[in-house]
Amino acid sequence: MVMADFPQAEFEARTEKAQRAMAAAGMDALFLTTEAEIRYFTGFRTLFWQSPTRPWFLIVPRAGKPIAIIPEIGRALMRATWLDDIRTWSSPAEQDDGISLLVEVLSASGTVGMPMGREATLRMPPADFERLREQAGFDPVDATPLVQALRMVKSEAEIEIISAICGIASSGFENAANLFHVGQSLEDAFRAFRIDLIRQGADDVPYLVGGAGQGGYADVISPPDDTPLRAGDVLMLDTGATLKGYYCDFDRNWAFGHASDAAKRAYATLYRATNAALDVARPGATCRDLFLAMQQVIGQGGSDVGRFGHGLGMQLTEAPSHIDFDRTVLRENMVLTLEPSMVVEGDRIMVHEENIVIRSGAPQLLSRRAPAELPILS
Amino acid sequence: MVMADFPQAEFEARTEKAQRAMAAAGMDALFLTTEAEIRYFTGFRTLFWQSPTRPWFLIVPRAGKPIAIIPEIGRALMRATWLDDIRTWSSPAEQDDGISLLVEVLSASGTVGMPMGREATLRMPPADFERLREQAGFDPVDATPLVQALRMVKSEAEIEIISAICGIASSGFENAANLFHVGQSLEDAFRAFRIDLIRQGADDVPYLVGGAGQGGYADVISPPDDTPLRAGDVLMLDTGATLKGYYCDFDRNWAFGHASDAAKRAYATLYRATNAALDVARPGATCRDLFLAMQQVIGQGGSDVGRFGHGLGMQLTEAPSHIDFDRTVLRENMVLTLEPSMVVEGDRIMVHEENIVIRSGAPQLLSRRAPAELPILS
Repeated sequence: MVMADFPQAEFEARTEKAQRAMAAAGMDALFLTTEAEIRYFTGFRTLFWQSPTRPWFLIVPRAGKPIAIIPEIGRALMRATWLDDIRTWSSPAEQDDGISLLVEVLSASGTVGMPMGREATLRMPPADFERLREQAGFDPVDATPLVQALRMVKSEAEIEIISAICGIASSGFENAANLFHVGQSLEDAFRAFRIDLIRQGADDVPYLVGGAGQGGYADVISPPDDTPLRAGDVLMLDTGATLKGYYCDFDRNWAFGHASDAAKRAYATLYRATNAALDVARPGATCRDLFLAMQQVIGQGGSDVGRFGHGLGMQLTEAPSHIDFDRTVLRENMVLTLEPSMVVEGDRIMVHEENIVIRSGAPQLLSRRAPAELPILS
Repeated sequence: MVMADFPQAEFEARTEKAQRAMAAAGMDALFLTTEAEIRYFTGFRTLFWQSPTRPWFLIVPRAGKPIAIIPEIGRALMRATWLDDIRTWSSPAEQDDGISLLVEVLSASGTVGMPMGREATLRMPPADFERLREQAGFDPVDATPLVQALRMVKSEAEIEIISAICGIASSGFENAANLFHVGQSLEDAFRAFRIDLIRQGADDVPYLVGGAGQGGYADVISPPDDTPLRAGDVLMLDTGATLKGYYCDFDRNWAFGHASDAAKRAYATLYRATNAALDVARPGATCRDLFLAMQQVIGQGGSDVGRFGHGLGMQLTEAPSHIDFDRTVLRENMVLTLEPSMVVEGDRIMVHEENIVIRSGAPQLLSRRAPAELPILS
């Protein structure tokens, strides 16, 4: 069932690539506790990760298939993946929530790598992690660059899914004139958009944020409230809708009735900034190059978002980051967002976002390009 | 805006309770990195936590308001909460993603508690956590029991929100005959249900899992596939819909056309098991008592779910667990699920679930009680 997301060859290829990189880095095993990483190597897809109660573990050995060490409640679903070695325990457990099963494997694993750097988290009780380190006698090395480098470059099968969900979100955004209107509360606008995407085939719309205000909005991460849309407002919706566990992540802006000159200018500037990034987005360029191309168009009016886009795939945001210090070299089949933002005036900001995949020549747009001028809805 | 979820007095009361418990436990500060805990003390609600890029920190001092140490992108939204001391940095940062700001506060904080036990995770790069411990010179003590004890007992304002989302999900489930039919794919059934709940007022339906099969289903955490519903199938949907950041979490079962005797018997047994738990769910009883009451009805036919319910609130599942080793004493205003499960026959299982709040006498049902007999849809 879950295996239906990809053929087995996809997981074999991911695992073999990881094992080649592990060999080069002198790692004998990868130890993983997080949803995206475990799904990447297994195909194990479930919303059950929202329950924090039970830890889940995956070990990628030097050779052969990964080993799952998971709560019994997940056995049936993990059996539907390509794994053979699935070790389970009855969780939650009073004393030993998977630790002795882990010790058995990790104490014989040599050098153990795990994600410990930028964007990494530890999805198990920190006290259990301490116990595990003591009992298995291992001192983990950082596998963040290794895992991120793998995940950044997508397969055509992954790109196809991301492209499909980007298409659904594009249709939703292009339907704005039917969904949004003056007098409507932001909550109702969000609701209409969410239903539209699900009806069109999105599995879910787990990420939907935005803002509305005269000539711009105050931030880009807020939930909606019951404030009604007014003439002169600029509305922005930014969505991460999902299909088969993969995200799109882009936004659109609209003015209602009329738009201030400042809002129109900011919109046009951000549109040009995105174009500048599209011109630079080629294999061999860096994330820093993308950042600088956008920053040059925007000038000093940057917002406090901190970067101008990022990787995209099984998570709403993934490595790399388009920021001055990220010198990640772009490679074919990287899926990225371009997300320039700027201050419109005062505390009002504006954000644009598109989703692309790096190809041998010009990048391929996965989102359908935003209109060149700020659209005005009645 | 976010503060509109609760009056300020709610956060003052939570913080003061925490500080009394900290004093009793000899802790001078609480260090928090996770969404639910940070929202609990601040009201800071955003879906942006789905982006793993930036860490977010909160420190609850011995006295006074909590201190937020967060990325600049969150400043505007955090300013809408009751906090005064909001320290930000431009994140992602190349070298110092909030660590020096943390060191400043934590190195002067005496004994620092943080959640490290059951259900806890560390939402920051483990390597940065190591650096922080070294630079701030602190050896954290476990604050898991302290934080869980606080969060388990809900305010009337929290109960009102959970009750509202339980009501919406109840209406959705009661609408089953209009939503689900033989020949419909499981994906389409999920889609119809999700849209129904959002249309009724749910903010989102982030958790929706289930299964369908002849006489029962194989597991309880799967996403849907395109298999069509058939006569004789038992369909189960389990949903965590949300309102203002609070979850419901319960399921319902239906047969199509006809039901096997084994399925009817299992349904009736689980219904009686829930009744047995409802009879026991009084202040002073324990989670273990609830577990044993349900187990006595079910007998030896337990499934591999591992427990018969749990806490509920800002997360789909929260402490405590209804399991033999959890001797948490029930207190008024704890919101809980009752979730007995059992094997129907072979590899088929069945699960029931209700949401309740512990009151001085009998518990109050937040979900509208499931039908006493397995409902059969045409």
